Amino acid sequence: MNFDEFLAKSPTVTGKKGPHDQIVMSSRARLARNLVNSPFPGWAKKNERLKIFEKIRETIDKIPVMSNSFSESMDAITAVDKQVLVERHLISREHAANGIGSGLVVSPDALVSIMINEEDHMRMQALRPGLQVQEAFNEINNIDDLLEEHIEYAFNDTLGYLTACPTNIGSAIRVSAMLHLPGLVLAEQINQIIQAINKLGLAVRGLYGEGTEALGNIFQVSNQMTLGENELEIVERLNKVAAQLIEQEENARAIVLEKSPKLVYNNIGRAYGILANAHIISSKEALNLLSLVRLGIDIGLFPGIGRELVDDLFIRTQPAHLQKNHAGKLSAEQRDTLRADMIRERLLKVNRPLPEISGNKK
Amino acid sequence: MNFDEFLAKSPTVTGKKGPHDQIVMSSRARLARNLVNSPFPGWAKKNERLKIFEKIRETIDKIPVMSNSFSESMDAITAVDKQVLVERHLISREHAANGIGSGLVVSPDALVSIMINEEDHMRMQALRPGLQVQEAFNEINNIDDLLEEHIEYAFNDTLGYLTACPTNIGSAIRVSAMLHLPGLVLAEQINQIIQAINKLGLAVRGLYGEGTEALGNIFQVSNQMTLGENELEIVERLNKVAAQLIEQEENARAIVLEKSPKLVYNNIGRAYGILANAHIISSKEALNLLSLVRLGIDIGLFPGIGRELVDDLFIRTQPAHLQKNHAGKLSAEQRDTLRADMIRERLLKVNRPLPEISGNKK
Repeated sequence: MNFDEFLAKSPTVTGKKGPHDQIVMSSRARLARNLVNSPFPGWAKKNERLKIFEKIRETIDKIPVMSNSFSESMDAITAVDKQVLVERHLISREHAANGIGSGLVVSPDALVSIMINEEDHMRMQALRPGLQVQEAFNEINNIDDLLEEHIEYAFNDTLGYLTACPTNIGSAIRVSAMLHLPGLVLAEQINQIIQAINKLGLAVRGLYGEGTEALGNIFQVSNQMTLGENELEIVERLNKVAAQLIEQEENARAIVLEKSPKLVYNNIGRAYGILANAHIISSKEALNLLSLVRLGIDIGLFPGIGRELVDDLFIRTQPAHLQKNHAGKLSAEQRDTLRADMIRERLLKVNRPLPEISGNKK
Repeated sequence: MNFDEFLAKSPTVTGKKGPHDQIVMSSRARLARNLVNSPFPGWAKKNERLKIFEKIRETIDKIPVMSNSFSESMDAITAVDKQVLVERHLISREHAANGIGSGLVVSPDALVSIMINEEDHMRMQALRPGLQVQEAFNEINNIDDLLEEHIEYAFNDTLGYLTACPTNIGSAIRVSAMLHLPGLVLAEQINQIIQAINKLGLAVRGLYGEGTEALGNIFQVSNQMTLGENELEIVERLNKVAAQLIEQEENARAIVLEKSPKLVYNNIGRAYGILANAHIISSKEALNLLSLVRLGIDIGLFPGIGRELVDDLFIRTQPAHLQKNHAGKLSAEQRDTLRADMIRERLLKVNRPLPEISGNKK
């Protein structure tokens, strides 16, 4: 399967239904694994990396759930396709910079992806729509077990799984949930809540992971510790924090709607008005405004309109996804125009948000 | 006639048809006059000001064109009503601060107004819709002649009419045109053109005169010199500059539409989108966005919609006009809400601007 066939068939995780998907856009479990007695990718020479890549790829091929996968060496993937993979959260931004000796295997449903020779020999993840951290972990854990039947991992009885970076050593697991929290942002409670989450040993990051902005009011919450806790404790804690965040977000929405309805209507109305009428729009502005329209859908201001509309635009208006649909190389200005055209066209069928006329003349 | 009766009957000048009213919103001619052997208002004692006020008011009463006028002492006009008069350009912001001993007479059609004991004993102006500087001058000149049949003005054979401020001495005439120049602003030519106009001895000011911002892309062009030129030369020069500005604005619109159509569509689309969907909006933002919708109407992006819609909102969304329609005292926040409600309601019948979908995929 080549990349374009893969892309045409594979849905985006945010487009699927899942538990609490009003707030939790997706869940993810990722394991870092390295082969025993083999240098980490950052230390390995090119021919060593190539050997490791081929060995891992052959091993993955033996696992039934990974049959018919998209499987490719990074040097055979174009720069635009790499960015498409980043925008779909299937590879890291760092892996996009890799070439020969590194590779990628993605399951046909695009829910399991394995980066080969990223920072570790293997970074394997399972994505799930909504709040399904445990399910995502079970899936990737199962794949990990199947792989381990064929290859031996670098493992130390005291430290656990050995990884290139000491922050991953031990369970080498990272679980995360991507949450849409516009209510907490509008209620100006988000910073306080992020601090509280940090104290629990969890990290809160932006849309594209470490060091990225929380565009579109989307926050990624993940565990920071991998040493001294087992996987189940880690998953359990994330689930607990995610459940609290869902409740806090729902409360924040209710409170801000009760206390400052016009502020909410104003933000959502303006976001819709701009999206439905702009002819030039940046990726960043689009994400932030789409987030508010998503909130509007959630609180019933757009009767008959589903979240899929916004969730799909979240992905399709990203730079590489726009470029992917056009033959010539697009400039940033051209992308801003095409993005606006796409959004305007999709919103043609969406009426102005409620309330059109305010009954409240206070 | 009390103020509310006057207000209910009197139209706004920008709502009327006039030559070149696509660009020239209104024209104005103003004369400053002082009674002979009487102290200027700034020097006169209260009883002197009262005497002068009564004398002038009685004199105005004798002129047929000013019969059935709204005529009032400034202390009998409420603060809100004074601001309504400022927003309609019928009194200066300075005159709004005056109380007993100062007054105002406005013709029933609200096109002629005479401030009594503002900076001078009389500041009389005629307003006309569109480019009608000469007509406005003729009208106020006629009223001036009729008044002079009954009272003697402070006049010096060398200096001309004597005024409280030396910048008005001589002809004591100020003629101005209010121009809507969004094309020159979008084309980023406006500053250069303002400098050129300044060199011709004309001043360019904002919507509410000296020291105010050019909100809504509305610029007021007026003569600066009153000494050493006769009235006809002054009117002639303003007419000439206004004609040039009309041509430059039309060129700027054509060029910016030709070179950067998406920039124009983007600005107009966003302005419409925000106005049609906001629930909170400041006076300043409303003016600036309404200006872009007015441009959109001019260039055919809103088929079937006339400029009156915008011109009316320009006036009715101003703070005092909003307050005037409500019993209790409104806070700025409440005004911002009522303003947004009014605009959203008026724009319910206005469809999204063209082009809805861009055919141009360049």
